[in-house]
Order: sequence, then C-alpha cells, then structure tokens
Amino acid sequence: MSMRPLTLHDDRLFPVDPDVRAITRRLYKHVAGLPIISPHGHTDPQWFADDAPFANASELLLQPDHYVFRMLYSQGIPLEAIGLKPAGDGGPAVDPREAWRILAANYHLFRGTPSRMWLDWVFAEGFGLDVQLTAETSDLYYDRITEALATPAFRPRALFDRFNIEVITTTESPLDTLAHHQKIAASGWQGRVLTAYRPDPVIDPEFEGFADNLARFSELTGEDAFGYAGYLAAHRKRRAFFAANGATSTDHGHPTALTAGLSRAEAEALFARVTRADVSPQDAELFRAQMLTEMAGMSMDDGLVMQIHPGALRNHNRDVFERFGRDKGADMPTRTDYVHALRPLLARYGNAPALTIILFTLDETVYARELAPLAGHYPALKLGPAWWFHDSPEGMRRFRLSMTETAGFYNTVGFNDDTRAFLSIPARHDVARRIDCGFLATLVAEHRMEEWEAAEVAHDLSYALAKQAYKL
Amino acid sequence: MSMRPLTLHDDRLFPVDPDVRAITRRLYKHVAGLPIISPHGHTDPQWFADDAPFANASELLLQPDHYVFRMLYSQGIPLEAIGLKPAGDGGPAVDPREAWRILAANYHLFRGTPSRMWLDWVFAEGFGLDVQLTAETSDLYYDRITEALATPAFRPRALFDRFNIEVITTTESPLDTLAHHQKIAASGWQGRVLTAYRPDPVIDPEFEGFADNLARFSELTGEDAFGYAGYLAAHRKRRAFFAANGATSTDHGHPTALTAGLSRAEAEALFARVTRADVSPQDAELFRAQMLTEMAGMSMDDGLVMQIHPGALRNHNRDVFERFGRDKGADMPTRTDYVHALRPLLARYGNAPALTIILFTLDETVYARELAPLAGHYPALKLGPAWWFHDSPEGMRRFRLSMTETAGFYNTVGFNDDTRAFLSIPARHDVARRIDCGFLATLVAEHRMEEWEAAEVAHDLSYALAKQAYKL
Amino acid sequence: MSMRPLTLHDDRLFPVDPDVRAITRRLYKHVAGLPIISPHGHTDPQWFADDAPFANASELLLQPDHYVFRMLYSQGIPLEAIGLKPAGDGGPAVDPREAWRILAANYHLFRGTPSRMWLDWVFAEGFGLDVQLTAETSDLYYDRITEALATPAFRPRALFDRFNIEVITTTESPLDTLAHHQKIAASGWQGRVLTAYRPDPVIDPEFEGFADNLARFSELTGEDAFGYAGYLAAHRKRRAFFAANGATSTDHGHPTALTAGLSRAEAEALFARVTRADVSPQDAELFRAQMLTEMAGMSMDDGLVMQIHPGALRNHNRDVFERFGRDKGADMPTRTDYVHALRPLLARYGNAPALTIILFTLDETVYARELAPLAGHYPALKLGPAWWFHDSPEGMRRFRLSMTETAGFYNTVGFNDDTRAFLSIPARHDVARRIDCGFLATLVAEHRMEEWEAAEVAHDLSYALAKQAYKL
Repeated sequence: MSMRPLTLHDDRLFPVDPDVRAITRRLYKHVAGLPIISPHGHTDPQWFADDAPFANASELLLQPDHYVFRMLYSQGIPLEAIGLKPAGDGGPAVDPREAWRILAANYHLFRGTPSRMWLDWVFAEGFGLDVQLTAETSDLYYDRITEALATPAFRPRALFDRFNIEVITTTESPLDTLAHHQKIAASGWQGRVLTAYRPDPVIDPEFEGFADNLARFSELTGEDAFGYAGYLAAHRKRRAFFAANGATSTDHGHPTALTAGLSRAEAEALFARVTRADVSPQDAELFRAQMLTEMAGMSMDDGLVMQIHPGALRNHNRDVFERFGRDKGADMPTRTDYVHALRPLLARYGNAPALTIILFTLDETVYARELAPLAGHYPALKLGPAWWFHDSPEGMRRFRLSMTETAGFYNTVGFNDDTRAFLSIPARHDVARRIDCGFLATLVAEHRMEEWEAAEVAHDLSYALAKQAYKL
Repeated sequence: MSMRPLTLHDDRLFPVDPDVRAITRRLYKHVAGLPIISPHGHTDPQWFADDAPFANASELLLQPDHYVFRMLYSQGIPLEAIGLKPAGDGGPAVDPREAWRILAANYHLFRGTPSRMWLDWVFAEGFGLDVQLTAETSDLYYDRITEALATPAFRPRALFDRFNIEVITTTESPLDTLAHHQKIAASGWQGRVLTAYRPDPVIDPEFEGFADNLARFSELTGEDAFGYAGYLAAHRKRRAFFAANGATSTDHGHPTALTAGLSRAEAEALFARVTRADVSPQDAELFRAQMLTEMAGMSMDDGLVMQIHPGALRNHNRDVFERFGRDKGADMPTRTDYVHALRPLLARYGNAPALTIILFTLDETVYARELAPLAGHYPALKLGPAWWFHDSPEGMRRFRLSMTETAGFYNTVGFNDDTRAFLSIPARHDVARRIDCGFLATLVAEHRMEEWEAAEVAHDLSYALAKQAYKL
Repeated sequence: MSMRPLTLHDDRLFPVDPDVRAITRRLYKHVAGLPIISPHGHTDPQWFADDAPFANASELLLQPDHYVFRMLYSQGIPLEAIGLKPAGDGGPAVDPREAWRILAANYHLFRGTPSRMWLDWVFAEGFGLDVQLTAETSDLYYDRITEALATPAFRPRALFDRFNIEVITTTESPLDTLAHHQKIAASGWQGRVLTAYRPDPVIDPEFEGFADNLARFSELTGEDAFGYAGYLAAHRKRRAFFAANGATSTDHGHPTALTAGLSRAEAEALFARVTRADVSPQDAELFRAQMLTEMAGMSMDDGLVMQIHPGALRNHNRDVFERFGRDKGADMPTRTDYVHALRPLLARYGNAPALTIILFTLDETVYARELAPLAGHYPALKLGPAWWFHDSPEGMRRFRLSMTETAGFYNTVGFNDDTRAFLSIPARHDVARRIDCGFLATLVAEHRMEEWEAAEVAHDLSYALAKQAYKL
C-alpha cells in the first residue's frame, strides 16, 4: 500500500445537506477561533509549573490515553507490549518506538471513533504530518513527533498559548499541596491554570488508604478529621485553601448519584461507623450520599460550583487492576438513577438560585427522562455535556437531541474536555463546536430558529456558558 | 436590538433534504386542513359551557402553562414573580403586565423547545403578531393579546370553531357532576366536548382526601363505597353516568404500570386495609394495580376505552408543592416497567379484540423494548403518542423511529395534545402532522413505501386512527 | 383499487442526500454480490438433507413466521384463522389459500416494518411478482408461489445455491443426533450447513422436560448426567461430537446475562438441588449463570465460539402458550444488565484473547452504556448485530450509531439473520449491507473516513468479520 494523504477537511463533522452545511459553516466561522474554556479536566499542573519538554510520541500520546490502549487491548494486544508497566515491575521497559509501531499497525481499529479524529488533528495540526498513520509511516511519525517535542514550541506553556486556552482547570485531592499551582502563580507566566476540589479520597470510605487519607487530612488542616465536627471543618478549611488558590469548583466521582438527608446525629453515628476498618458497602454508600448533600451545603456558603460525575463502576477487570492499577480503560458505565437519588439533596438546596450543581452521566437513558426534566425545573441544577464514552460526535448529537426539548440550551454549560491528553484539547473543543453548530443549523433549516439566534446560541455554547456556569 | 420579524415558515419542521421536503409538502397538503380530533386533554369544560372571555395574556398563556413557568423557574425566577399564587396567600397579586414582561425578557430560554413553537404559532396565527417577543415588544404583545381576548372572536366557542375541532375530550373525576358538559349539551351549540372518566381520586389511597372522596362517591351513587362490593358498584354507576354524558374513555394516571390479578377474597381484604387511615405504600400500590385490572374488566362490559398514563413521580419538589400545590412543573418521569407489570391484566383481558387499552410512557427506553413488542402482539393493546416531556419534534421522531419496526402504524392511535393550553391546540396537532409527514416522506424517499401509501397513512395518523381508537 | 406495481428500487434504504447516496452506491456495488455467511439461524437442516419441495405459500411464508402472524394477531385476527394449529387439535385445518387471503387483505399493517421489505423481496426477486400484495392479488400470489414451489428451481438446495450462501449454521440441542447434517455430509452436495451447540434444554432447569432431557443426555454420552462430574463430561462429549460434525459455535438463550463464579463444591451442591423436582427460581437462575461460566471454560479448551442471547421473557401470553405452544410471537424483551452480570465469567476468562464470546441484546439501552465499553476493553468479547425485534433498518442504524464510538467496527462480527424464514435470507443480508454502506457513506461525507477505508470496512462487515469471528 502506498502512503495515503492525511487531510483535515474544513467541513468535517458538518451535516451533509448542502443548505444545512452552508448555514453550519457560517455559524462555525464565528466560534472556531474563540478562546478555549476548559473548566474540567485532568492535565498535570506540573507540566505548566515546570514547563519541561515531553519525552516522545508513545509517552505523550499512547501510554496515558486509556481510550487508545483499551481499544488495542480489546483486540488481544497485551498492555505490556505498548509500554504500560505492571505495578512493581522492574523488568526491561518496552522500546517506545516499538510501542508506537503497534499503534500504527492497528490504527484501522479506530475508524469511526473519536480517538481517530482527535489523533489525526494532533498529527496534522500539531505536527504537520500529511500522510496517514500506518505500519509503513510509523517511524516517520515517531521521529517527527519526538523531534518536535524537543523544541521550545512544544513545551507545555508554548502549547497552552498556541492553543488559545483562556483558562484550564485541573483536579486535585484535598491532600494535594497545590505546589504546582502556586509555582505557576509565582512564575509570572500569564496562563490561568486553576484547580478543582476533588475530595473522593477523603469522602469515599472504600477508597484505597481512606484512614491514611484522613490522617493526612487532619495534619494539613489542624483539625481532628476522625471526629465528625473536625472532619467537616477540615473540608471547609481545604475548600477555602483551594478557593484562595483559584479554585471555583468541586468535583465528585461517586459510583451512584445517591444523596441523603440525614440528621446531624445520624450523620455522626454513620461517620463513626465508616471510619472503622470494617465498613459495610451500605454504610459506605450512605456516607458518600450524605457527603454530597454536605458538600452542596458548603457550596451554599463558599460559592464553589459543584460537579457530580456518577455512574462508573471502577476497575471492572480485577486482573488488570491488580497488575496495572487504576485508570487502565477498565471502568464501566452503569445504569444510574437521578430522580430518586438526588431528591434528598434537592429538598435542602435545590431551590437556591445562587447554587450551581452540574450533573453528568454515563447513562444516556436519563437524558430525556430524568436530567432534562430535573434541570428544566430546579434552579440549582445545570447539565454537564456528553461525558467520557459519550464524548463523541454521535454522543453530542444524542445529548442535544434529547435534552433541548425540555431543558433548552441555557440549562447546559458548554463543553468539558475532561482529558489527560493535553495535545488533543483543541481538537476536542473543535469537535463540540462543529457538532453544536450543525445541530443549530438544522434547527435553522427546519425554520425553528432564526440564524441570528443560532449564532448567539453557538457563541454561548462554545464560550460564554462555561465561563458563566463555572464562574471563570 | 431592533425589532425582529416573527414568521411561521410554510416548511417548518420538514426534513431538510429538498427531495424529501417536496414529498413532505405533498403529504402535508392533504392533512393540514383535517379537523382536529383531540381525544385526551385538560381544557376546562366551563370555558365552553359559559363561553366567557379570557382575561389577559398572562392569565391565558403564562400562568396555566407548566411547560413555560418551569423553564423560567429553572433559571432562578420566583414563581410569585410571574403571578403564581402561594396557597392561602392573600397578599397583593402581581400585575399581569409585569409578569408578561418577565416572560418576554427571557423568551430566548425557549430556543429549541416545543413551547417556543407553540407560542409563536399562537402569537402569529392566533393574534396576528409579526415581530418576535422580546423585552422591547412585551407591552405591544400584552396589549394586542389582551384587547383581542375581549372581542367575540376570541371567546372559547368561537375559537373552537375557528380551530376546526371536531371533538375534544376533557378529563373529570368520578366526583364531578358533569354540570358543564350538561350545560353545553343543553345549549344548542354544536361543539362536541366530551368527558373522560379519571378515577384516580377514588382509586389511589394516597390521593389527598381519599376517605372524603369515597364518602362523596357513596353519596353520588347511593352505594356504600366503603365496602368492596359497593365500591365496585359505584364505579359501574359513575362509568355509566359518564358514558351517558358522552364519555368514550377512561384515564388512569398511576405512578407505575403495575397491575394485579388478585382473587375476590384477596381484593376485598386489601380494600379493607386501604380504606383505613394508615395505609402502607405497598398496599396502596397493590390496590392501584388491582384496580387497573378491575377497570379493564369493566371496560370489557361497558366498552369504554382505557388509557394508562404511568410513570410520573408527582410533586418531586416538596417546597414548591407545599407553597403552590399540584401541577407546578415539578413532576418528574421515572423508569417504568411494562412487560412484567402488565402481565396480570393481560393474562385476564389481553387477548380480547373488543377491548382497547392505550398505553403511554414517560420512559422512552421502553418504546422498542417493551411497548412495541407488547402492542405488536396483544389484541387489546394500542400505543398512545409521545407524551408530555416527549411531545416535541424530536420526541415524536424517536417514537416513530422506535415503534414502527415492531408495531407498525396501525397499533398506534394518532395524536393527543393532552393540554390545558387551549390556544396552542392547533399548533400542537400541526407539529404532529408535520413530523409524521416528514417521517413518512423519508420512508418514501428511501423506497420503503409508495407515496400513495404514505398519503393513506398520513391521513390515518392525523385523523382516522384517533377517531377509531377512541370510538369518536 | 387497481393493481399497484411492486418494485424494488436499486437505491432502497440508502441515505436520501444525493452525495451520500452516490457514495453509498459505490460502496454497495462492491459488497452486493458477496457470498452470504449466515453464522446463526434457525433453518431446518432436514430441508437440505431431504431436498423435498416446500408445500404452498402459506405454509412457507406465513405460518412459520412469527414476525408476520404476531402483527395480524395484534389486530384481532385469530391465530387459527391463518392456519396455526392449537395443540392437540384434531379439527379441520384452515384452507391455506384462505389463510393467505387474510395476509393479503391486511398487508397494509406491515407498512414501515422490516417484514414488508423482506416479503416484498421474496415476492419480487424470489417469484417474479410485479404487483403489490392486496386482497385483489391474493389468489394470483398464492397460485404463482405455490406453483413455483413445485419446480426443481425452488427446492432447498437449488435455492441455497441461487442465494449464493457460502455457509449456513443451524441450531441444535445436545440431544439431537445430527442425522440431517450427517446425511448432507454424506450426500456429496457441496453446500456447507453447519450445526451449533444449543444446550438450553439440558442447562435450564425450568425447560420443559429437563429431567427427561438429562436422562437422554446420559444415554447419548454414556455418562451419568445426574451427577455433576458426569454432567460436565456429557457436555464435553456432545460438544466434541458437534465439533466433529462441523460446529464452530455454541449458543445460549438465557432469560438474563447472569454468570456466576461458584467453587466446585458450591456448583455440585447447586446441581444436586436443580436436578430435584422442586427447583426454586433462584437456584434455576444461579445454575444457568454458573453454566455460562462453565461453557466459557469448555470453549477455552475446545475452541468453540460462544454466543449469549439473553433477555427474552418467553411465552408472556400464557393463553397463547397453552393453546399453541412456544415461538408464537409472544416472547417479550426485558431490561438486561451486562456490566454486573458478566463480571464473574469475565473475571475467569475475559482476558483470554483466544476465546470469543459474542454478546447479543434485546435491550438497546445497553449498547452505548454497557456492551460497547465491555467489548472495547475485554479481549474475549465481541458484539453480535442488532437482534430480533431490532433487526430492522432503524435498529441497525441505532446499533452502529451507539456502538462505533466506543467499540469501533472491529469488535463487531457482521450480520446474523437468525431466521427460520429461509426465503428471506438474502433480503435480510441485503438490508444489513445497505444500511452499513449508508452509515459508512455518511462518515465519508462528514470527512471522518476516506472512501477507500469505508470500502474496506464495508467488505469486513458484509463478509470477513463473520467468517473470522465464527471461524468459518
């Protein structure tokens, strides 16, 4: 096979009908260049603090990207072969060039997936490559990318500027010192890299090292986090510390969306049980539920926007978890209830217009049935974008097609990239802008909205709503 | 911002492809002017009995429309500000002109929603307005609408005739005297305004005032509705009374679709328990379940078409319920099972071709999985249209796209507007006709159906199926 | 009504946009004529063994097709009237010509359904009919079809060759002697008709005649199938016998996807309980669950591909079951969990690249939420196509639109026709090819894939993936 050209067509992802496509082009033209607001994600703040170069193609684009290696694994390729290291393994590392060759030889597996689009954008726009990735072009790719990474233009801060990022938010545990964020602030560099308060390690009694985490939590705050009053006070102090260092939001990654409305006495008794070694699954679940409500209460006081990301069954594959640890592409979505689960929290705080709770889901069946009806009524609720497995052109279309009738556009909050894959951030936001413009253009072509209105909405979805919802 | 024109494009909601649109136009032309069959809804029969003028724009279009005020509320606007009155509140009423201004200033929230389409139709077709509703045009709107309402052409009966309504059905409790319907019948006016038997207040042990309702039920029927035999006899008498006053259907708004097949002895024992003060939720649910089966049995005898509307968790927001009462936009859909839930009823009556049970859902996941397979097999079952939160262009498309493969068109029953918003009824039926014609045109363009067949089906979906299924 | 022409348009089922349609045509041209790989279905091997002629139109096309008669039944037509015979009924049979007239007079009920497309293909391509089936043309149809069936060209083997079937797989119980398959093999005819091992009658303790089945299982294998060791050995022997007679796969039609990971001692104790007369539903479910895991283990050894078809509630309509028996259009899909249910099996065997487990579902809500994430990670899992109620153009589109983003194309296995309706097999595969080409063409038109890539994928989906996944 000869080398095949790699091109990013200007009209990619636009609806196929010529009239709708023409409207889409006009709408997109006005939002394509807007700065990126990235209010939720998992980039490493150390990149921006130290501004050290990335090492090579595999280490940057393959080994940290669970979307990519899970697909290779599903087709029988061992994780070791592409450079993932088993825990405690001191054996010989895989040659990153060899790992890259495996990706290249199997790149056809990604046909039709968002990973293909994101990577092609990185290859073409990021590195100027103009032939497709195949077994034949693997070394060409590896060398071109690895060489570029050694140059100043590919340092994290330079990429941040080149990508036109107005603000990006990372996610840290309450136990984090925020040293990287403080180093960035002290550096004089103008890039806004915020943190978000992600307290799962000190809220989930089933989290690895929960007791140790509480010990550290006590230490950092000077509170006794093994007593309920001290525990809550420790949260308040760390939230304040995060806010003082720029945070505008919290994030909660629970297995379900369950919330609870326990009395103080009940909550204290429960806390006493979950801080013992032999916590029951029921108590663990109830404590997480109660803490969502407590966190909402604290947000009423300190103004932090609250994000709830429920529904992932983590580490479904025990063998992979034991050998490689967390975040290895083996988390699975589960059916998730919101209407019943959120009721206790909403009974306390749902009618507060000053509170913002942003809901995400991995269960799309709730879009039209639960999330849109809830967010279309409760002042405190807003809808996060299509998430994780559903962060795809089809997923975004399903989101708009199911949510808009009941929640409109103004109970949604724009796009989240939610990624570790820094180089793909512009591609991800670009996909969202293209899909939203296509959706709006169809409404215009169906004479359900005027084009000037669609242009306003496109701007809001691409930029203004995220900024406003996350108080950025 | 200058004033923006308001136009209703002839091709609105039609598919965008030019060939498909051309077919759609031809199909639509033949059904656009068909009389309206409105077999299920919540208009007030007193309107047609008294034929008094409506008061003003806010009282007609804003304050009774939970689709509209729930959206405003979701964005932090207090319900009081738009004129909803807290229970027992004797305080100063909101100026309806001010309430209207709030709607006008926030009208952009409805972009992409069906409310926007319905309202724009009312504004343009109903009142001849030709500029969009905005803060700027708010008073123009308010005055134009309020003035028109004072004229004879906008009296309820005149609108009924102008809207080309062949028959409309309201919904009454068994405790209703049907005085309004009797007044209409005695008036000499030709408009057909039927009632439907909605026995929830005397079937649901958790309904407010259940015991009082049974007392009144006894009084109206001369039966002892606190004994099971008398209770069933009371139902039979009121059903006969409703039928004698024109009813052709019953309607059942249960939290779930559960049915039961208890023996007479079990049912009597259960009835004894649910008529006590301290009914358990389990008994209440089981009694509602048993009564669905009993109602189907009575329909076998008296021929009334049975509608089941399950799946709404009513009054999710306790604070709003306590302050403003029912139907304030705070009902939420829930996951609903049909395959297991309906089995007891179907075991008794499902194979009876003479019985018609029309199923609705707020849980679209059951369309392809449960409702279409059930209705595509059991002679007694038919499928009601996309309902409530799903009464939208996208919702209607999902309905056809999921149901047709297994249930075809002839196990469906045309459109229900299900609305209190009288002025929007033509717009709602028009949306359904446009969407169905577009769906059919796509089948024609994909060469899956001839155009003459599509024309027949379009007529059936717009007119004949509702008339036939509801025996109108 | 005059006679209406029956035509199969060359572009049927292709997307309506002219550019996309042009791409679709080009893609389809290269796959339209590929041989049929039919790796899962329910044709009768006796047809190919004996090669006897089919009797008449009703017996061939109406009475065995539950898609067809369930629709007629749903509209109040008694099953007896179309020739289905109540169990033990010795009464007069229905004239097949009269039965056919009922189908003809009601053929409009199938508008928009896949049955309509499949039947029209059989009429036009199979029998050269060029007018639509209506009451008027009923006898013309009946005579033309019945006469053709008496000719050599319509014998089963001749049709097999004419349909360009490369291989077809039937489904047999472990208690089957495979006499028909052996007769085919001995006949010298070149047609490949394979069997698949479907052990439900000896795995499901709730199957009719379970104890008798185990007795026969013992007899056929020389093992004591009433002891757990002998029972497992009997499976191994019959699997080997099936494999020796050409089988490459097993098939498991359980009510749910539950699997279990019991210890040997637990499994033995459970087996002792389920082989008693009074098995509890819980034990029956757990035993089926454990046996899925055992079957996967045996597949690790003997290489048979494992298919899991869960989620049908069989014989929902007790009255129809008691009068007419199984498979009378009264099976209903149910909500089905996979993420939790499959975990025990996957914990043992999910990471084995040499194992192939093909998952099907009647619950489409799991496509994006559970099946694609599972198959996009576990090496052992692949995704079967849209199944049964969802084997339709819309169902296939939903499948691709929901699965591809996370699982890609290469974790899917091409098309299954899963049918008893032999004459419709080419039409069914043709529908799948047309829909897949249309889906791919849209990706090309949206510039997400090059056309040469789409052509490769179209070939894989139409031919190569099924051959490879099923080891054919």
